[in-house]
Amino acid sequence: MRIRLDMEYDGTRFSGWQRQDNAHTIQERIEEAIEKATGVRSTVHGSGRTDAGVHALQQTAHFDTDTRIPPERLAYALNFYLPPDIRILRSLEVPDDFHARYSATGKTYRYTFRNTPQASAVFRDFSAHEPRTLDLSRMQKAAEFLTGTHDFASFCAHSGLDKNTVRTIAGITVTRSGDYIVIEVSGNGFLHNMVRIIAGTLAAVGREEIEPEDIPRILEARNRLEAGITAPASGLMLVEVRYGADAQCASAGVSSEL
Amino acid sequence: MRIRLDMEYDGTRFSGWQRQDNAHTIQERIEEAIEKATGVRSTVHGSGRTDAGVHALQQTAHFDTDTRIPPERLAYALNFYLPPDIRILRSLEVPDDFHARYSATGKTYRYTFRNTPQASAVFRDFSAHEPRTLDLSRMQKAAEFLTGTHDFASFCAHSGLDKNTVRTIAGITVTRSGDYIVIEVSGNGFLHNMVRIIAGTLAAVGREEIEPEDIPRILEARNRLEAGITAPASGLMLVEVRYGADAQCASAGVSSEL
Repeated sequence: MRIRLDMEYDGTRFSGWQRQDNAHTIQERIEEAIEKATGVRSTVHGSGRTDAGVHALQQTAHFDTDTRIPPERLAYALNFYLPPDIRILRSLEVPDDFHARYSATGKTYRYTFRNTPQASAVFRDFSAHEPRTLDLSRMQKAAEFLTGTHDFASFCAHSGLDKNTVRTIAGITVTRSGDYIVIEVSGNGFLHNMVRIIAGTLAAVGREEIEPEDIPRILEARNRLEAGITAPASGLMLVEVRYGADAQCASAGVSSEL
Repeated sequence: MRIRLDMEYDGTRFSGWQRQDNAHTIQERIEEAIEKATGVRSTVHGSGRTDAGVHALQQTAHFDTDTRIPPERLAYALNFYLPPDIRILRSLEVPDDFHARYSATGKTYRYTFRNTPQASAVFRDFSAHEPRTLDLSRMQKAAEFLTGTHDFASFCAHSGLDKNTVRTIAGITVTRSGDYIVIEVSGNGFLHNMVRIIAGTLAAVGREEIEPEDIPRILEARNRLEAGITAPASGLMLVEVRYGADAQCASAGVSSEL
């Protein structure tokens, strides 16, 4: 049977999601836990990779197993073997044609800047420090230019690897919450480092180094050097992966906010 | 001159605020940083202690120094020598009669429960896990009984140490924020472990193990055994220490929310 896992992780001490030699990765830890809990190793397929230091409030994956452990109990069995910085939030049986990556219909990422003269102590691993005051309304204006279907080659770390760099951003919100500026980006697919480059570019707009009206030109250039820097991994959080109703998405909706 | 420091810290790896032999404490780290930055050791007086594992978004302290470093620059100088889990948010000169502990007019603490079947990975050090569903309205009703001036001996870890266990709680709010239940308690003074015992008691009310109407009887008993358990340190955060306008409080108001 096929099992869907929704999980939360603190990416700080991991070399990202994807299994690789001689590295401490989230995929590797989960595959080890499956082997310990069920007795059989199984490959875990994630909805996509997250880089080293990037976090998730809801990442989704699937794997196939013959275990007699009831699907809903697998979350408890796997958590017993997982370190506390990875938690399986829920486990459920899904149809055999469910695929964590290919069945996904959308994702939401959140990028968080601590915007005060001094960095955060408490949220230092879950934010990026921007000591210069960011102008929220400028950032919101720039975000509007990024919304919609565009060629995001200028916002891609290695655009040569992606044949097609056209993506659709359904929405970007930029809000202030106390000492923090929070950027949320929803879309149906993201290029490598896309959200971190968007965050770095919006911060440059907020610092008045780039004009909001420059965004269309930056998009048209299809040149990574035209956009802002790649903002640090620590500020990025995968908030939600969405699936159609057939993937029992409704019961697995996540609303993790602190 | 006397310097006021407002600071944020992640208490996870510290043995609490107060300096003690052979322990890694926040007070000790700050006194070391002052010695490195100014060349002279000086005792730092905090608004009060926090226990091992307890965090602060704003803790306040003062110390006396003859340094030529401008008061406002001391935050930067000290942060250079401090570990990233302690940040001085601001430093300013205050009148010689300002005292971080005795001039304080009020404090607010926040206690956070993760109220889902599985614990949090991302906020595991900043919340306590309560897998059983908590009934918010019951907790809010119990909180009303705790508000006001009462003898809180039943909510004190070592009431024998405090001659006077009468305190005033100005307000308690209990709110749900996504997967979290957040309790905020404001008052003019707190007994040892008082907020953690209040949190543990309100959780027991939320689980229907204690009735909201039992709170007056628990207060009257003046017996620690009548209240709920002491909730874990990880869930507790000192959010704000308040001072009168003469302590230049207005410019130092903190609104750290993530």
